[in-house]
Amino acid sequence: MREVAVIGCGMTKFGELWTRSLRDLFVEAALKAIDDANVDHLDSIYVGSMTPGLFVGQEHIGALMADYLGVAPIPAMRVESACCSGGMAFRLGFFEIASGHSDVILVGGVEKMNDGADVTYALATAADQEYEAYHGVTFPGLYALIARAHMHRYGTTRKQLAAVSVKNHRNGALNPNAQFQKEVTIEQVINAALVADPLTVLDSSPVSDGAACAILTSLDIAKKMQKPTIKVIGTGAATDRLALHTRDDITALKAVQVSAEAAYKMAGVKPSDIHLAEIHDCFSIAEICVIEELGFVKKGHGGPFTEQGHTALDGKIPVNTSGGLKSKGHPVGATGIAQIVEVVEQLRGNAHQRQVKNAQIGLTQNMGGSGASSVTHILRID
Amino acid sequence: MREVAVIGCGMTKFGELWTRSLRDLFVEAALKAIDDANVDHLDSIYVGSMTPGLFVGQEHIGALMADYLGVAPIPAMRVESACCSGGMAFRLGFFEIASGHSDVILVGGVEKMNDGADVTYALATAADQEYEAYHGVTFPGLYALIARAHMHRYGTTRKQLAAVSVKNHRNGALNPNAQFQKEVTIEQVINAALVADPLTVLDSSPVSDGAACAILTSLDIAKKMQKPTIKVIGTGAATDRLALHTRDDITALKAVQVSAEAAYKMAGVKPSDIHLAEIHDCFSIAEICVIEELGFVKKGHGGPFTEQGHTALDGKIPVNTSGGLKSKGHPVGATGIAQIVEVVEQLRGNAHQRQVKNAQIGLTQNMGGSGASSVTHILRID
Repeated sequence: MREVAVIGCGMTKFGELWTRSLRDLFVEAALKAIDDANVDHLDSIYVGSMTPGLFVGQEHIGALMADYLGVAPIPAMRVESACCSGGMAFRLGFFEIASGHSDVILVGGVEKMNDGADVTYALATAADQEYEAYHGVTFPGLYALIARAHMHRYGTTRKQLAAVSVKNHRNGALNPNAQFQKEVTIEQVINAALVADPLTVLDSSPVSDGAACAILTSLDIAKKMQKPTIKVIGTGAATDRLALHTRDDITALKAVQVSAEAAYKMAGVKPSDIHLAEIHDCFSIAEICVIEELGFVKKGHGGPFTEQGHTALDGKIPVNTSGGLKSKGHPVGATGIAQIVEVVEQLRGNAHQRQVKNAQIGLTQNMGGSGASSVTHILRID
Repeated sequence: MREVAVIGCGMTKFGELWTRSLRDLFVEAALKAIDDANVDHLDSIYVGSMTPGLFVGQEHIGALMADYLGVAPIPAMRVESACCSGGMAFRLGFFEIASGHSDVILVGGVEKMNDGADVTYALATAADQEYEAYHGVTFPGLYALIARAHMHRYGTTRKQLAAVSVKNHRNGALNPNAQFQKEVTIEQVINAALVADPLTVLDSSPVSDGAACAILTSLDIAKKMQKPTIKVIGTGAATDRLALHTRDDITALKAVQVSAEAAYKMAGVKPSDIHLAEIHDCFSIAEICVIEELGFVKKGHGGPFTEQGHTALDGKIPVNTSGGLKSKGHPVGATGIAQIVEVVEQLRGNAHQRQVKNAQIGLTQNMGGSGASSVTHILRID
């Protein structure tokens, strides 16, 4: 396998972008990534997007984006794994470079969720339609079940859940691309409108529009360029039973654990080697479960670990320095690539007020549904 | 790059399968392919599907299919390029094997179109929503425009268009998996209900349910197995402007030509080396344009070439021996893999009454939208 590097990235601001279209957003992020990489051609494009068909009535967006970017006839396709579509697009670009078939690939993610579609229905298509969605359960409900089980089994408290949102808003307040650039307090999170007990609206990531892109090439080519080289040292992906009720233990996100294990093994690193991580905090409880599955803390200890500040910017393992899905926003297909954007900026030392000191190895973890898909990447500055 | 081989394939019958679900269909085809390959594990899965979200309210079908196949936690994802989603899934499996990252991959395609969704709207999301679909044009209309232009410029006749359907139904009548196992006459095609002038319902592929799967591995591993080895010697993919009115010449399917050129170059073969081809005859005019772009006949001569029988089972270059999309059926995401299934059966000499004599090199060409995406593969028996 050829070694693979990230040589450019870019993203739009995330938010309720009423004046921007799906294609607009993708092209803006793509041009920023192309400029950043300073490349003069692309060999192919992978676009991660969860459900542009349901959100804006547009499928076939691989070809659409190649067209609007002005790069047809190069190959382009869309990949979908619910909310980890972006992370999967990155993985596909990795394989195509690694195979030696292509030299320069644009991987991106985009979603336009605020154009009037029934967002709750559209997102629920990532759950099991026949055994979950049809019966009325939605994602806040599924994650609320996980939260209640985690609280019951491990003693995780309402306040510990809130601590995730407080920390991520604190980071997001420092991120000019974040949807919510403001801090929130524990009390505000707990007393916000209840969505699905125990989760309030401030435990939940928002409905967002946005796009993010990155440029991949081989390590050999990257090294010839006059810029810091960010090497992709690990990729891992995994699945789990789709419907929550079919799993042995709903507090365990097995796909996250397996995808991380694969990425760690390939990279030859362990959890304690990671300097920062961008992970899938679609709900506060998700971040607590994920840091446990990634091995940053023992199973069941994610709540206290967060409350004690170990995942803060200056903590043992800074998590979601970008603000995460909670504060930066969660245009679902774009999220996995936006995580890459943050890690690349951190490893380059360009994260300004959010900069993690001496960040050399970063991890991204992107998840679909109630954790039935997960993809983990590990990047290192060379 | 490691060399890649197909070691197994399987498909469901195509048709109006009212008693079968999306997951049912995929699992049936997957188990057939796994049995055929005689493998005891899979490293990952790629599922091609155009719009299960609009057809049956289910996205995230990579994880769903891994779950129902009983193979979670292996990685699984869905790929979408409108009607060439299946062909793109095959290409992704190729890259992952070629990269050396994985050894055994299931690539498949599935679509469930007959469950009550607005099929015409769902399919129109493969066109440009803002500049085509929104204004009411649908795919029969777009291909009718191409047909009229082709007739005007090259003198292609109504009867020549019908000859495509007659030939494909003749082949489909010999295929037990085909949706329509019966022959039609030139007169029946011409006098059938008009859909979009000049195309009648018998110039058009049907609304279908179905799934198809194949197993890929490295050539080295394949050669150790006690069975004929089908090597993937070429892969090519390309895009074009999405909206038909933005192209310089609507009778030219540039993505088809570019994807074929890439596949021929990689395979080191020319059009005259191909012994049979499964191509994207979503409408009769599409087959005429595609055989021209593939180089089987000079531009503009596709109509007479077809009428003279050169694409028949016993012709110079047998095209759509399976019955093609027209007669075999067109569950959109499954089509690209079903093409692979037919070519593999032909190269193995297992195509019974449809068998092309001395078939050693076969080509598949799968297309999305009005040709904005195309993917071509060339297979050879080793």
